[in-house]
Amino acid sequence: MGLGNFLKIFTPKDRVFYSLFEEVMGNLQKMSSVLIQALNEANRTERDRLLRMLDDLEHQNDEVTHRIFIELGRNFITPFDREDIHSLATALDDVADYTWGTAKRILNYQVDEVDDVMREFSIIIDKCISMLHTGVHELRNMRNLKAITDACVGINSLENEADDLFDKATVSLFSSLSMNPIELIKRKDLYQEMEIVTDKCEDAANVIESIIVKYS
Amino acid sequence: MGLGNFLKIFTPKDRVFYSLFEEVMGNLQKMSSVLIQALNEANRTERDRLLRMLDDLEHQNDEVTHRIFIELGRNFITPFDREDIHSLATALDDVADYTWGTAKRILNYQVDEVDDVMREFSIIIDKCISMLHTGVHELRNMRNLKAITDACVGINSLENEADDLFDKATVSLFSSLSMNPIELIKRKDLYQEMEIVTDKCEDAANVIESIIVKYS
Amino acid sequence: MGLGNFLKIFTPKDRVFYSLFEEVMGNLQKMSSVLIQALNEANRTERDRLLRMLDDLEHQNDEVTHRIFIELGRNFITPFDREDIHSLATALDDVADYTWGTAKRILNYQVDEVDDVMREFSIIIDKCISMLHTGVHELRNMRNLKAITDACVGINSLENEADDLFDKATVSLFSSLSMNPIELIKRKDLYQEMEIVTDKCEDAANVIESIIVKYS
Repeated sequence: MGLGNFLKIFTPKDRVFYSLFEEVMGNLQKMSSVLIQALNEANRTERDRLLRMLDDLEHQNDEVTHRIFIELGRNFITPFDREDIHSLATALDDVADYTWGTAKRILNYQVDEVDDVMREFSIIIDKCISMLHTGVHELRNMRNLKAITDACVGINSLENEADDLFDKATVSLFSSLSMNPIELIKRKDLYQEMEIVTDKCEDAANVIESIIVKYS
Repeated sequence: MGLGNFLKIFTPKDRVFYSLFEEVMGNLQKMSSVLIQALNEANRTERDRLLRMLDDLEHQNDEVTHRIFIELGRNFITPFDREDIHSLATALDDVADYTWGTAKRILNYQVDEVDDVMREFSIIIDKCISMLHTGVHELRNMRNLKAITDACVGINSLENEADDLFDKATVSLFSSLSMNPIELIKRKDLYQEMEIVTDKCEDAANVIESIIVKYS
Repeated sequence: MGLGNFLKIFTPKDRVFYSLFEEVMGNLQKMSSVLIQALNEANRTERDRLLRMLDDLEHQNDEVTHRIFIELGRNFITPFDREDIHSLATALDDVADYTWGTAKRILNYQVDEVDDVMREFSIIIDKCISMLHTGVHELRNMRNLKAITDACVGINSLENEADDLFDKATVSLFSSLSMNPIELIKRKDLYQEMEIVTDKCEDAANVIESIIVKYS
């Protein structure tokens, strides 16, 4: 019996959600750091190997999310509103989906050169996920509400930063007179996918905020 | 103390939602009329200034929507189903988001010439929002159910009109043999964004309809 | 009085949902078989006539979905969680929307030649819908849980197949050096729309799975 299963048996039923959400967050942190690593890898074979790792990580995340939904169906008692647990799990699952969606597009579109815009996005995404980790972790005891609020505010401002980056990058794509249309399609699509990752982080932060409004 | 806050204190708790929804509707009406004005402005600097105003209006709308969610967390008593309040606020927030999304695309894609399709869309959007205003306003006393139903039916038929406009415009984009692909991308994206505004208006109308089905 | 209305009167209130969901499934099965037929039709006028039939079928589906929501508002007793009924109806409505969305794109983009990728997608979609039909049908008596689970597992694996097909097709679009950008836009968009149909089938399967977890 793994340590995980051992702990689970002795965990009060409603506590299982905290562990599952922390598992999701651990996974998302791995995903964003692999993404950064890939976007800074000069060797294309190695870059593509790293990007493909995100597929597995996304699958692992699907499994944990699925377990959250199963527990939600089984447990009469939940630590906070059922619909909030559902929304939070869905938003975090979307973060994983769109992160893998980004990697998949780089692979499928056979992007030759990763650009600075993509690298900047990956750093914003990594910061968002790190703040989400704090927010989710602190939900467990609710002792440090300020840390949760700060994390949510931080994610909101990072999402604005991602919006501005997207706008600047789009203007630049459409002002370049020599831009090849297929190259434009690739980059526009990729930037958009990365911007959506930060939107989904904000969605998760909004759920966390609404949880602490109710329980504080 | 502003008049708004003064009134709020003397408003029974569950009545606060009507005022907040009316605030949202006032904002949306401003947004659609600024959009029409911008799309009919020949001077590009002035056009872009008007389009940028929609950013502020969208932010203001975010704030009111946020207040609706906060009140929803606080109030035990709500005038209609909590989930309906949540869905209506979300749909109206989406109307604001996609309206600003339209303006943002015109700015970011540096659209030289606004075309008739965009202007037609802006008029349909304005009509939808005006009907939504009626629907939301009449929810307050529920005395004029026919006015609410008529508004919802009207929005559904305007959404069909927007669909047809989108189809015709798409056919025309893809039949033009001399069409520059980057120009096609811009217009296709813009028409789609404007069509989604009317979809979101229809979503809001559907929520309103389901509210009156339950309470009539 | 039609046979449908006659039966309805003698149906216990909460049973009406099963009949409505079966009506939806009958409609979706018609849609996917008309789509396959259209994509294998050599004569373009006849192909377009078949594609346009999907518009009517989608409208019919909207009506039934609407009736499900109305019943949900009226009925205090529902055979399973209200939110599950709502989510299932929404997911199935999305299946119809994106199926018609596929047909509409072929018409609006004036696609000259339907390709093998589109035909493969249409077969996957048809299989998904046939499995959904089994799942929905068996919900009525809950006697054959294994058949329901098998259908859900089958849909999940078909959705993975659709993902792989989409990836392969995208790689091929972006590796072709002679690809016309407007042609690429058309096909990319069409493949995506068809892939979303299978996503929505999976959403529906996930709701069905969560229903049987709770009631078994």
